[in-house]
Amino acid sequence: MKALEEKILKEGQILPGEILRVGSFLNQQIDSEFMFKIGEEIARLYKDENVTKILTIESSGIAIAMAAAFHMHVPVVFAKKGQSHNLTDNNYTSKVHSYTYDRDYAVLVSKEYIKGNERILMVDDFLAKGGALEGLIDLVNQSGATIVGAAVAIEKGYQGGGDALRKRGYRIESLAIIDEMGDNNIKFRPQ
Amino acid sequence: MKALEEKILKEGQILPGEILRVGSFLNQQIDSEFMFKIGEEIARLYKDENVTKILTIESSGIAIAMAAAFHMHVPVVFAKKGQSHNLTDNNYTSKVHSYTYDRDYAVLVSKEYIKGNERILMVDDFLAKGGALEGLIDLVNQSGATIVGAAVAIEKGYQGGGDALRKRGYRIESLAIIDEMGDNNIKFRPQ
Repeated sequence: MKALEEKILKEGQILPGEILRVGSFLNQQIDSEFMFKIGEEIARLYKDENVTKILTIESSGIAIAMAAAFHMHVPVVFAKKGQSHNLTDNNYTSKVHSYTYDRDYAVLVSKEYIKGNERILMVDDFLAKGGALEGLIDLVNQSGATIVGAAVAIEKGYQGGGDALRKRGYRIESLAIIDEMGDNNIKFRPQ
Repeated sequence: MKALEEKILKEGQILPGEILRVGSFLNQQIDSEFMFKIGEEIARLYKDENVTKILTIESSGIAIAMAAAFHMHVPVVFAKKGQSHNLTDNNYTSKVHSYTYDRDYAVLVSKEYIKGNERILMVDDFLAKGGALEGLIDLVNQSGATIVGAAVAIEKGYQGGGDALRKRGYRIESLAIIDEMGDNNIKFRPQ
């Protein structure tokens, strides 16, 4: 998605630790008109897959999931991190390793919201080493539902998580894939 | 909003501790078509206020904020809880008391995303004692921006937070106000 690459080049900031800060439009602050265009593109990519539900992870995945849901006319479910008072014990749970924070955290989703006959599209804002998607895949597999694939806004291709999942047969659609990132230098994978 | 009251009566569950569980359509699982109708109603209520930005708080406020933003054509900013690696030190910060969890947590938003000349609409899914809105008000006041008001989906009127804010002059629009809640019994405030 050319418009996303241009937006990253224009508004993204590279912070120490290979962190790409896109808080001006993709998280913290959300350029909602642009986000709904991203959602439209995700809907286009998966239009033939009979998706019944979008699964994401709190909190930065929720906005892009809502944008895709608007165009796909399906519900969104978000996996919660850690424990919550408002959840019953009736959950699928998994563990995600955060490389950013170097710690594990639990993710959970109520069993009520993923049924075995569903066709699930996973959506997130970022894909780096793939930890969050691995957690979501685990949750969906526990439910017996079908994973049709994943859609993410920005993939850090050089961290390998997306390609590893593709090798295992998952359809992973990233609207911008960064293959190299250095000081004020971002190289996108041609798509 | 009659449709929201009906949805609460149909799908809401009352859990011990006066917790209203609406995870089947408002958070955890989001009925996205219905949520965009909620957003449309928020846009209608504040259409004459020249809102420049919607401010919410992660994570359950993000979906309703996106739904309102779709109809209002403004960006969303969400305040983050606690500390984050991807944020710079350049933040407005405040403290919120969670009555659900009986603890304080920090909320913060980058100074870049709320400027003094903006007209801010605060949006959240729930309003009970008003702790989250108090935190957001404090953040906006630090920026010098104008608060046009707040829009929430469900207000627990009997907890008093909404009315206390109204008495202080804030415009608080709640699409459903629950004045009494007991075992399988929910009484809405006429609006």
